[in-house]
Amino acid sequence: MWRNSLAGALLTVVVLSSSVSAQEPAKPHKSEHQRATRTVAAVRAVIDAQRDAWNRGDVAGYMDGYARSPNTVFVSGDSVTRGWQTVLDRYKKNYDSREKMGTLVFSDLEITPIGTRTAIVLGSWRLRRANDEPHGRFTLIFRKTKTGWRIVHDHTSSA
Amino acid sequence: MWRNSLAGALLTVVVLSSSVSAQEPAKPHKSEHQRATRTVAAVRAVIDAQRDAWNRGDVAGYMDGYARSPNTVFVSGDSVTRGWQTVLDRYKKNYDSREKMGTLVFSDLEITPIGTRTAIVLGSWRLRRANDEPHGRFTLIFRKTKTGWRIVHDHTSSA
Repeated sequence: MWRNSLAGALLTVVVLSSSVSAQEPAKPHKSEHQRATRTVAAVRAVIDAQRDAWNRGDVAGYMDGYARSPNTVFVSGDSVTRGWQTVLDRYKKNYDSREKMGTLVFSDLEITPIGTRTAIVLGSWRLRRANDEPHGRFTLIFRKTKTGWRIVHDHTSSA
Repeated sequence: MWRNSLAGALLTVVVLSSSVSAQEPAKPHKSEHQRATRTVAAVRAVIDAQRDAWNRGDVAGYMDGYARSPNTVFVSGDSVTRGWQTVLDRYKKNYDSREKMGTLVFSDLEITPIGTRTAIVLGSWRLRRANDEPHGRFTLIFRKTKTGWRIVHDHTSSA
């Protein structure tokens, strides 16, 4: 009986070893998964910081989420706004008071990393204001830049 | 004189050789550039085929440009349509006659490859119809699938 237990224990060790060895080729997947998890958290943090900046009336802080590049694009309706500064100017013009800015709420966020330096975000936006509640969806393309994850392409639509 | 020409010719050969050797480290860039060029052409071909299918009243042919996946998404206004079949059903419902389909024109196409398996497309769309001409912009995310480059995410907005 004791012998059988020992044999059983040895067998367990062998089975565990071979299962560990069988898992080895999967290691890169595990680290890919960890990287994806880190990407989702980093992108989520940028989006949360944008919402917080907006809700304290800080449009420039909100704009920190976008890549400071002349190639950054904001698309809505039939118009394309190109370049970080131009996108900032558009926001400042369209939301020139605390009342117009209202309270920004994001929901239904789906963050999908693609490769090591790109992530796609699909989400819902809503502005809670005194007299109306404009709302819609956005698709964001994030790229990992020297200064962190930043939006390079924002396509926003309204109901 | 003849000797000078020969010396000149030899010098030219040496300069050419060293310039060839100097270019060698750039080879990967050249092949990346070639891959990007091929990606742009392949994505462009899918978009052109979609337009042609639409303009012969073939909605199913148009849908060949989308990945046949339950994860394929079509975003517009404040709505998300998810899954290839559901996107097809939406198109069939919204464009149930040749008159409603009109003539589809794409313009301002910007195709940006990202890595080896992804491309982002920004473009303008317009439907030429008897009584109106709806128009707007689209952002497409293409992925290289087993059956070729296909749209996995379409965010379309209207003027």
